[in-house]
Amino acid sequence: MFREKIKVLDCTIRDGGLINNHDFDFKFVRSVYSALSEAGIDYMEIGYKNSKRLFSPKEYGTWKFCDDEDIKKVTEGIKSNTKISVMVDVDRVDIEDIKPRKESPVSMIRVASYVKDIDKAIFLANHFSDKGYETTINIMAISRALDNELTECLHQLEEECKAQVIYVVDSFGSLYQETTEFLVKKAKSILKSKEVGIHAHNNQQLGFSNTIEAIIHNANYVDATVYGLGRAAGNCPLELVLGFLKNPKFDIRPILDLISKEFVPLRNKLEWGYLIPYAITGMFDEHPRAAIALRESKDKENYREFYESLVGGDEE
Amino acid sequence: MFREKIKVLDCTIRDGGLINNHDFDFKFVRSVYSALSEAGIDYMEIGYKNSKRLFSPKEYGTWKFCDDEDIKKVTEGIKSNTKISVMVDVDRVDIEDIKPRKESPVSMIRVASYVKDIDKAIFLANHFSDKGYETTINIMAISRALDNELTECLHQLEEECKAQVIYVVDSFGSLYQETTEFLVKKAKSILKSKEVGIHAHNNQQLGFSNTIEAIIHNANYVDATVYGLGRAAGNCPLELVLGFLKNPKFDIRPILDLISKEFVPLRNKLEWGYLIPYAITGMFDEHPRAAIALRESKDKENYREFYESLVGGDEE
Repeated sequence: MFREKIKVLDCTIRDGGLINNHDFDFKFVRSVYSALSEAGIDYMEIGYKNSKRLFSPKEYGTWKFCDDEDIKKVTEGIKSNTKISVMVDVDRVDIEDIKPRKESPVSMIRVASYVKDIDKAIFLANHFSDKGYETTINIMAISRALDNELTECLHQLEEECKAQVIYVVDSFGSLYQETTEFLVKKAKSILKSKEVGIHAHNNQQLGFSNTIEAIIHNANYVDATVYGLGRAAGNCPLELVLGFLKNPKFDIRPILDLISKEFVPLRNKLEWGYLIPYAITGMFDEHPRAAIALRESKDKENYREFYESLVGGDEE
Repeated sequence: MFREKIKVLDCTIRDGGLINNHDFDFKFVRSVYSALSEAGIDYMEIGYKNSKRLFSPKEYGTWKFCDDEDIKKVTEGIKSNTKISVMVDVDRVDIEDIKPRKESPVSMIRVASYVKDIDKAIFLANHFSDKGYETTINIMAISRALDNELTECLHQLEEECKAQVIYVVDSFGSLYQETTEFLVKKAKSILKSKEVGIHAHNNQQLGFSNTIEAIIHNANYVDATVYGLGRAAGNCPLELVLGFLKNPKFDIRPILDLISKEFVPLRNKLEWGYLIPYAITGMFDEHPRAAIALRESKDKENYREFYESLVGGDEE
């Protein structure tokens, strides 16, 4: 399916950093950047811009902070048209850390926000837009947004926000394709002047199909990660997206090499992908944190008890 | 999504048997039957009915042949409403091996056929129907069927065949949801007197989503396997189907227990599921046999070379 306007953003290092405290070494990150560049991927999201007042660099790796100098160590000497993106969370960024676009190796800043925090997110996105960056707002946990609140949020984004792209984020991997269709159509109907993006998690093996569904309904910004790397069940796999898009500007081969050489060995050290506890949190539209805790415990294969712990009954 | 007419068929032992020469031991098969029964699954497909003239019982396990006595060893003493199904391939079954339904533990016989062999398949299905069995025809490799030939095939099935269900089989895991929608709608439009089923492979992580897509477009027979077990990338996972259907007659818990106790250890011995060579054959709409051979070779992680070997150029 070839639609020229579609942009692919790889967030392997940013989302994958949630499994290893953002501590990928420079050689690894360079090999990802190099392969993405060769493959023709539009954007590489390299990490978060977090406040060092709130988070100690002693406790977290490089890609929790993404200092410009560190980014340059990754990109220098590699021929590339792949733009660098960083993510910020509402209430976790010091805006004075962000230099004007012209002085930075970063092209795009993406603001992750819940519906309830949208005013803060709009403030941030507008601030970064004014500094010259491409900006997006990524609406997290959209599967839990009440319809009237989401409607208001989307109108506000259309009217008050300078971000070029608004993402539907299936944080819990709980969306089925019918709901993805509903949400993307809804967003497109309100966001007349903006593009819509999709960021899908893979708890129920639906990350790729929800991405296709969003593309069918005119989402033009697509997030993916190499071999589906990412917290818990991980993300929509980049290699599958490239196989689907058939856009002559992309070449899957460097991604296949990268998986062979770097990601197959990595999978033996870090756990991600389809596992029953993550499928269960997806079914229940829950954050995977309880499932991650289970996987780190001695009961990691005790699926029935985990399921029972999520069956409702105490929320009234 | 609760639609009472939906029937779930588990083909774990039948499709999984393609990885281990159909040689699951009785204890394992009994534990699967027991869990499926407790979970309320409608059918369990236990293996193939193959001719012992064509295949030697010395070379293949029990579930290549499914003698009635062996099936009874699995089912006896277990309280169950789960019906037993067996599969036959065109040109590989001795019809005299099939006793009348009343004398057999089998309820359903499914005939797997390519479009080109549909006359033979109709003969077999009608023969088994006349012996008292529920019957289906499973159209394999439907992703490669030419539209005019598929149309003729479906008309023939509607007019000449006694089978109650006709399955769309995505043998190569190459279908995207738009094509699944097209094929299921097409089948439903011609097969006025029959049900349509879906059997989806997971090469591109689309087994579950294609199954959902088929259900949305009124397929009422759904194949799945426990933990996605099956040749190569495996199948649509049963546990995800149960999470989606929300039919009160099903209980996911026995399946979760079965995965914990039997399938997690099995996965350390047998390889199936999402792996890049299977994704590649899915993208190319090819049988996975070359990918299976690759996985058994010393080059098993050499994805680029495998990809290049499938890029076209010598088929004109």
